[in-house]
Amino acid sequence: MNFSNLETPALVLEAPRMEANIARMHAQLRRLGLNLRPHVKTAKCAEVAALAVAGQSGAITVSTLAEAEFFAARGARDILYAVGLAPNKISHVLDLRRRGVDVSVITDNVEIVRAAAGKALPMLIEIDCDGHRSGVKADDPHLVDLGKAIETSGAELRGVMTHAGSSYNCRSVEAIRAMAEQERCAVVSAAGRLRAAGLACPVVSVGSTPTATYAERLDGVTEVRAGVFVFFDLVMAGISVCRTEDIALSVLTSVIGHQAEKGWTIVDAGWMALSRDRGTASQPLDQGYGLVCDADGKPLADLIVKEANQEHGVLAHRSGGRMPELPVGTLLRILPNHACATAAQYSEYQVVRGGREIEARWQRLPGR
Amino acid sequence: MNFSNLETPALVLEAPRMEANIARMHAQLRRLGLNLRPHVKTAKCAEVAALAVAGQSGAITVSTLAEAEFFAARGARDILYAVGLAPNKISHVLDLRRRGVDVSVITDNVEIVRAAAGKALPMLIEIDCDGHRSGVKADDPHLVDLGKAIETSGAELRGVMTHAGSSYNCRSVEAIRAMAEQERCAVVSAAGRLRAAGLACPVVSVGSTPTATYAERLDGVTEVRAGVFVFFDLVMAGISVCRTEDIALSVLTSVIGHQAEKGWTIVDAGWMALSRDRGTASQPLDQGYGLVCDADGKPLADLIVKEANQEHGVLAHRSGGRMPELPVGTLLRILPNHACATAAQYSEYQVVRGGREIEARWQRLPGR
Repeated sequence: MNFSNLETPALVLEAPRMEANIARMHAQLRRLGLNLRPHVKTAKCAEVAALAVAGQSGAITVSTLAEAEFFAARGARDILYAVGLAPNKISHVLDLRRRGVDVSVITDNVEIVRAAAGKALPMLIEIDCDGHRSGVKADDPHLVDLGKAIETSGAELRGVMTHAGSSYNCRSVEAIRAMAEQERCAVVSAAGRLRAAGLACPVVSVGSTPTATYAERLDGVTEVRAGVFVFFDLVMAGISVCRTEDIALSVLTSVIGHQAEKGWTIVDAGWMALSRDRGTASQPLDQGYGLVCDADGKPLADLIVKEANQEHGVLAHRSGGRMPELPVGTLLRILPNHACATAAQYSEYQVVRGGREIEARWQRLPGR
Repeated sequence: MNFSNLETPALVLEAPRMEANIARMHAQLRRLGLNLRPHVKTAKCAEVAALAVAGQSGAITVSTLAEAEFFAARGARDILYAVGLAPNKISHVLDLRRRGVDVSVITDNVEIVRAAAGKALPMLIEIDCDGHRSGVKADDPHLVDLGKAIETSGAELRGVMTHAGSSYNCRSVEAIRAMAEQERCAVVSAAGRLRAAGLACPVVSVGSTPTATYAERLDGVTEVRAGVFVFFDLVMAGISVCRTEDIALSVLTSVIGHQAEKGWTIVDAGWMALSRDRGTASQPLDQGYGLVCDADGKPLADLIVKEANQEHGVLAHRSGGRMPELPVGTLLRILPNHACATAAQYSEYQVVRGGREIEARWQRLPGR
């Protein structure tokens, strides 16, 4: 099997890059003395998750219960569902737990604690470390009340967790390091307040790929969650968390036409194939809907996907420069802005090792 | 079955709105004396397609060969694959044809004609009517050469087609009407040039939801393609092609928390549930990632999805005004910017008739 046996668009995974990305994160966490609980929402793939948990505790993080089911069916037994619980998901979580899967949940409010009363559900309190979305502030006067409400409701206070989503907007390694320390301080301080009130708080969980990559110390933290590091993407490259040549994911596409007078090459990868994510639009180097490479994965200088319709991509030179010759039928690879969003449309990875030979096809959980 | 039996997010289809939308398009095309070849890429659902082709020829339009397979397996026998053909899809199209499905393809270049030489493939020439993406201009000196190349290659010149994608950027009904006439003129003139050269050109195909809705005459056209009209969305409402109350598709979501001091309500529908599409961002009224309604589908004044992460949506008042009380667990419905993009993440529709009772679950082709 090689690229000539595929219909485009197809999702290509460069195994050596992924393996190096995972090895680098493992080395960083070994240095910090911490377990990795990888966020599997990026890959949604058993083979990738197996590499990410190798040498770790085997615990994973998910963003939906569909992911929890997918990985439970493939052997996962310690799963953190890291989106604030909704009442209509409680019975599903309990059902997974009855099947022997230790699913823990998160919340930042007492209403959900009441809705789950008497259910012996392990709960982590979500801490807001950066004003980015959900969570209780570490110094919120209600934090200890919430911890006590969990204990008295019959649930289990498993610990505290936070996610420094704002690290995606940092513009320097120094800023990411400062954000990692801010993330650490928030949960460690929240855990301290809960423990001072006589509550058990065994888990102190942090994580985002940027902060996990550059954190210098994580004293008081017990585990790190990170997801996109397995593949990386242009947004991560744009904030110096990886190099372009570390990006393991790309979309294989075919040239289907040209509009010569405009300098356009049309390909069969539009926003369904690439996603609508324009995460680099707010970065110094806007990569459009993705950076264009040849079929072997080598970037073509300053060629980007300028526009995308549902199944059409329009390639053009970043600043109107000369386009290379790309006859109809030419195979190209597009590096994505955001690996999680791009991978979401596919049900399998075409796994390669630096060439066009497909060494394996790995199933992934498609869609929602 | 009703909303209380669902896990959120879920994709809700208001059947009466969809039926009215389809009836309106059928009435418009009856008035114009034309057959509808609905574009099924929006719904990717056999039940919706059956309603859209009722009283028509049964022909459909698809944007991928996965859609062609899905609908062929459900009885479709006349399918236009309306994205420029890539060489690696030729054998798949021929395989579908051998199975008795009349799949026709489109192209705008002679390279693909050569790649398919001797294959008896029905081809339409794609005409560029608005400089929007692919296609040969109607007055291009190479148009007749391309038509002759198709005939001499052993393929069948089935006709010409165009798509006035620029109609999505029109800002008035008058502008859409003018675009519809521009779309019509382009293909009718191209067909005339081909026929004058002695080539058969039986099919003259146009279509976009805005131009199909407002076209006043389509003389010389033989069929109309349109897709998003079955559901409509906020982008269509923003250019007066429908009213907000015609939008048949919404995402059911649960409140999972609040950040009171910021006026934020957090829900479990992020960009995976809603899509990253920000099509209203360039319209006079920016709807964020979607317009918030109560569980019965009634819009909550000026409440929109301001921000979206992968599985989190942040609801806020459009201009910082007061938020209604929305306790944790409250069910809400979000109207989408772009129905095609939002529906893409789901594998089924929850079909309702104006309330919270689910009368049916309709399967859809998820992902790519």
